[in-house]
Amino acid sequence: MDYSIIVVGDELLIGQVTDTNSGWMARHLSPFGWRAKWVKVIADEPAEIERALDEAFAQTSVALMTGGLGPTKDDITKPTLCRYFGGELVRDEATERNVAAVVEARHLTMNAYTLDQALVPTSCRVIQNQVGTAPIMWFERQGKVLVSMPGVPFEAETMMRREVIPQLMRHFHSDVHIAFRNLVVTGIIESLLAMRLDEFERNLPSFLHLAYLPQTGWIKLRLTGMHRDDRVLEEAMDTSVQQLHALLGRAIVADDDLPLAAIVGNRLRERGFTLATAESCTGGNIAHLITQVAGSSDYFVGSVVSYATRVKTEQLGVAEADVERHTVVSQPVAEQMAQGVASLLKAHCAVATTGIAGPGGGSDLNPVGTVWMAARVGERTASQRKHYPGSRDRVIARASTDALLLLLDLLNE
Amino acid sequence: MDYSIIVVGDELLIGQVTDTNSGWMARHLSPFGWRAKWVKVIADEPAEIERALDEAFAQTSVALMTGGLGPTKDDITKPTLCRYFGGELVRDEATERNVAAVVEARHLTMNAYTLDQALVPTSCRVIQNQVGTAPIMWFERQGKVLVSMPGVPFEAETMMRREVIPQLMRHFHSDVHIAFRNLVVTGIIESLLAMRLDEFERNLPSFLHLAYLPQTGWIKLRLTGMHRDDRVLEEAMDTSVQQLHALLGRAIVADDDLPLAAIVGNRLRERGFTLATAESCTGGNIAHLITQVAGSSDYFVGSVVSYATRVKTEQLGVAEADVERHTVVSQPVAEQMAQGVASLLKAHCAVATTGIAGPGGGSDLNPVGTVWMAARVGERTASQRKHYPGSRDRVIARASTDALLLLLDLLNE
Repeated sequence: MDYSIIVVGDELLIGQVTDTNSGWMARHLSPFGWRAKWVKVIADEPAEIERALDEAFAQTSVALMTGGLGPTKDDITKPTLCRYFGGELVRDEATERNVAAVVEARHLTMNAYTLDQALVPTSCRVIQNQVGTAPIMWFERQGKVLVSMPGVPFEAETMMRREVIPQLMRHFHSDVHIAFRNLVVTGIIESLLAMRLDEFERNLPSFLHLAYLPQTGWIKLRLTGMHRDDRVLEEAMDTSVQQLHALLGRAIVADDDLPLAAIVGNRLRERGFTLATAESCTGGNIAHLITQVAGSSDYFVGSVVSYATRVKTEQLGVAEADVERHTVVSQPVAEQMAQGVASLLKAHCAVATTGIAGPGGGSDLNPVGTVWMAARVGERTASQRKHYPGSRDRVIARASTDALLLLLDLLNE
Repeated sequence: MDYSIIVVGDELLIGQVTDTNSGWMARHLSPFGWRAKWVKVIADEPAEIERALDEAFAQTSVALMTGGLGPTKDDITKPTLCRYFGGELVRDEATERNVAAVVEARHLTMNAYTLDQALVPTSCRVIQNQVGTAPIMWFERQGKVLVSMPGVPFEAETMMRREVIPQLMRHFHSDVHIAFRNLVVTGIIESLLAMRLDEFERNLPSFLHLAYLPQTGWIKLRLTGMHRDDRVLEEAMDTSVQQLHALLGRAIVADDDLPLAAIVGNRLRERGFTLATAESCTGGNIAHLITQVAGSSDYFVGSVVSYATRVKTEQLGVAEADVERHTVVSQPVAEQMAQGVASLLKAHCAVATTGIAGPGGGSDLNPVGTVWMAARVGERTASQRKHYPGSRDRVIARASTDALLLLLDLLNE
């Protein structure tokens, strides 16, 4: 099924806001075989909205629209949609009750702006917004559908997952059950993985679909299924996941659809372990990734960012002789940093990085992009040397990911 | 002048990559009175590219295209542009020399893919890409212009600033000189700032333009000027910047167009100061922001991320009595963290944060979003309490920015 995305808002065209809605829409819809034909960002102007709708309905079966609603907008989109699809703008009682409930839950009071949110065209069916005041409007014309949603990403994504996608699927693929499974695969590049799964994919039931979602340094495998019979679907999904585990073994490090730092966090929590980081070239980014996860204080103790060499020797107990003999970007230094921070901050586990993020500071021995990293779980230590091409940001991001993967691998042993 | 932006790439339509190019394009062009009419994201398909070009030339004078180039693309865009504008694809010597130079600077070797980057349509004028291998192509048709650029944001933005914008201005506004000045303003909200600058703006020469670019927690003021006489322009710019300094005083914390962490870094380097951070709720993000700046090892010593309370008392010397009396999210704890890390890591300056990033952990005294932060320069300490609405990510981001601003303010005293 082809669809188009229309993003309405002057604030996007002047570069004040970046459109992130189209991205997650595509990621949520692609597992169903839905394909975004184009995304168009347009101004809050009736002529632009009408032109985009004409184009969308000429070329695709479904148009998803975000933005142009909300109390501070100049009331362009709703009247335009009303003119386009017919009918008139009326105050809708159910929508008004919903707006009042949302406003109350936010400890605010109703005003003229929020009251106007209850005005909707008679030509649409309203999907009540459970997390905001702007209503979601479903229009149909000659078998084609437009869904208009607010532009606030949190509201649009929440309601898209809870209501819009299920309703679109019932409308276009009625009576079908849907299931997902996610696997985190590491230590193998995409092309090799595809070769190893070639036969598996050829034998996959036609109602299952396997997608490769490459991340920085790892691959997410997403298995999606659609079937009329819920039980048949679940059994086939279970069997396929078992086959994937049998084929890939330890390359599958997790079965969760979570950021890597949250997967690591869950492993630590399961085992009652605590974690500390000792970071040089990653400069605190690993600690930042870990603490972006809500609840990370359950297992994360803290970090020593030892950017200056003397912080490595004075605080983390790295031997000066090893720094002199092997340089600061070396296996002994990375391992002693991990051991040192675990001991200093009294943590069961640790990760450590030392490297040259660039653009300056490279040498023949350790060119820019070289990183030594170590992970420690109890008395066990693992370490590896990596070389990353590209910018400083990329070196920091990839080294952070690989250090977490090294720890995850050690935790899974 | 109206222009359109065409973003080419399947990876955008499946939600793997977010388009950020259109945003900075609009921000760079709006000071010249240029207005983006629409942004369209399309697939790597000849029919889609041709349709978008037809639409762009029908509705706007200039089309800016990003993406669809680069060695791993399936060679769709260049042949399509060649068909659309006429001529044939030929190996261009100057482009080949440029590709070879870029490849050499990256310590890579030429291969068939990189060689193909030197193929360009005879109907275009090449602007050599100084920071990548994909050439920038300038096409003209009936007084209208298409500029095709690579999709990599760093390459496209660098070349847009260095070459494409000056060439567009010479083409459409010939003989005009252009100048910019940027000021970082803190501690005042946009609407109040606009009121304070109302008279200044009304008296501004017609060839100067002041733009407000609100960032998270601060505002960038950008003064742009266009004039035929270079000297008149520079004099007017200087006078206006002096007037802004007179009007805003200490609210202007910097005159540079740099990320905040780089501005702070430059102040530290000028004074020969070193910096350490002690982070609780920001979890290493401030250290990460600082170390994203190349050359930060000149002044950044390191950080102690004291996520667990005992790391605050054991490593940073925070008094347990103060934690008990005032709770861990309090002024004495923030100030002792700053003092403790400066002393432990032997740094002249420090910043510290302690707060509740959420979603859990709030209390009546310190609801979710409360952050105490402190900055220290030598023996001088400043501290403040903030409360941020919104998600965990937002609390971390805003607290990191405000802590850096607090330090900058103290450095400027």
